[in-house]
Amino acid sequence: MTDTNPTAAICLIGDELLSGRTRDVNVQQIASFLAPYGIPVEEVRIVPDVHERIGEAVNQLRERYTYVFTTGGIGPTHDDITADAIAGAFGVGIDHDPDVFAMLQARYDDMETEFTEARQRMARLPHGATPITNPVSGAPGFQMGNVFTLAGVPSIVQGMLGDIGHRLQQGTVVKSVTVRSAGLREGDIAEKLAALAEEADGVSLGSYPWFRSPTDHGVALVARSGDQEKLTAAEMKLADLIRSVGQEPEVLQDGAT
Amino acid sequence: MTDTNPTAAICLIGDELLSGRTRDVNVQQIASFLAPYGIPVEEVRIVPDVHERIGEAVNQLRERYTYVFTTGGIGPTHDDITADAIAGAFGVGIDHDPDVFAMLQARYDDMETEFTEARQRMARLPHGATPITNPVSGAPGFQMGNVFTLAGVPSIVQGMLGDIGHRLQQGTVVKSVTVRSAGLREGDIAEKLAALAEEADGVSLGSYPWFRSPTDHGVALVARSGDQEKLTAAEMKLADLIRSVGQEPEVLQDGAT
Repeated sequence: MTDTNPTAAICLIGDELLSGRTRDVNVQQIASFLAPYGIPVEEVRIVPDVHERIGEAVNQLRERYTYVFTTGGIGPTHDDITADAIAGAFGVGIDHDPDVFAMLQARYDDMETEFTEARQRMARLPHGATPITNPVSGAPGFQMGNVFTLAGVPSIVQGMLGDIGHRLQQGTVVKSVTVRSAGLREGDIAEKLAALAEEADGVSLGSYPWFRSPTDHGVALVARSGDQEKLTAAEMKLADLIRSVGQEPEVLQDGAT
Repeated sequence: MTDTNPTAAICLIGDELLSGRTRDVNVQQIASFLAPYGIPVEEVRIVPDVHERIGEAVNQLRERYTYVFTTGGIGPTHDDITADAIAGAFGVGIDHDPDVFAMLQARYDDMETEFTEARQRMARLPHGATPITNPVSGAPGFQMGNVFTLAGVPSIVQGMLGDIGHRLQQGTVVKSVTVRSAGLREGDIAEKLAALAEEADGVSLGSYPWFRSPTDHGVALVARSGDQEKLTAAEMKLADLIRSVGQEPEVLQDGAT
């Protein structure tokens, strides 16, 4: 892991994502958070609230990627089984963490709210895990080896990410630029784009059509590179390519992506 | 597969989803489409535009689930490699399909648009695949065994789903009901909810908190069942549970989910 660029995978946990009840936003949120650290997300899985399925996915992903981020299933209710599943995946026990327990106890005392047995469950960490601060609602996530276990609620995920950056290894930041054109069709530029992609050294080119209606469609060409000079050169070539078929390019500086 | 309920997995293909550039909508769209057929989505993966990674994911998923749906990577550009990856995964060749080729040729002739070599690529199908009609933009998806390969653009996915329903085995339709309450906290009802979940036969209960701001938060309790009577009974118990802690329940009939 030391000489190569760090990588990440995300494991979203929750029946509500698989059923379509909830549309995920955490992949985008976590990927955007990791981009400035130069850590690309290379795989995502969504698994149900089933102990063995969570453990299997986490074990496969943590072998393969530098970091794994899980979301969901760490609240106080019966379907919150992620902490137990992570402990199972690592083959360790799980117990109330005294510091987390005391912090939550004080928090609920302050709110004059009973610190019920269910709420106490949120103080349970797998043995060897370190907590991840939750500035939104108190109950922490945790880091176990290279696995970061976060809440599912997006605003809480965002809060927890603030306690993660300092734990990450920095990679090469890949920046991107989008050159798009409404009305352009992929088939008009595919051959020339393939030639550009072939000759592009250190730049990857992607083509993303949109088709919202018969009058609202077009293509976004995206160049990605860790080298700003190469990226600028690619941007000009993509703009020229679009002009060569009689269309007008529009350039969007995406920043890190 | 004959006596058990059919299942599905979704494999989203595309660097733009992993980078966070694009937020997926196809999981929700495909899961909602499958719900009335009684086919639950049990796993989702997002993989990059890399031949081996697509093949590996598809091969693992098609072994495990009744149906697999892939999205993305079937256009005319150099980064559209899904058809080749599926052929590779099944260990078969890939060629222009004469019928699809003729259909696309006629379509581009009608539009007085050159049927370039790049556009001709969209007529390539793995040996043994059958096309899936694309009423939006012409170039078809395809079915290869239990794998349905669709476009990535959501409006085109929607169009292609219209040519898939008649190919699917019907399962038991699971319906859901949501009983939610603004201001409710999971910790207030977790013990009683666990007891309900324990005694509920043929009904699964999930708890989904939202926390958008300090003044906009609450909990949605969701019951799912294939049995309408049991679902109605669960709905009443969930509403009573919420009232028992002094909050007001709001019932949403979700239908199939």
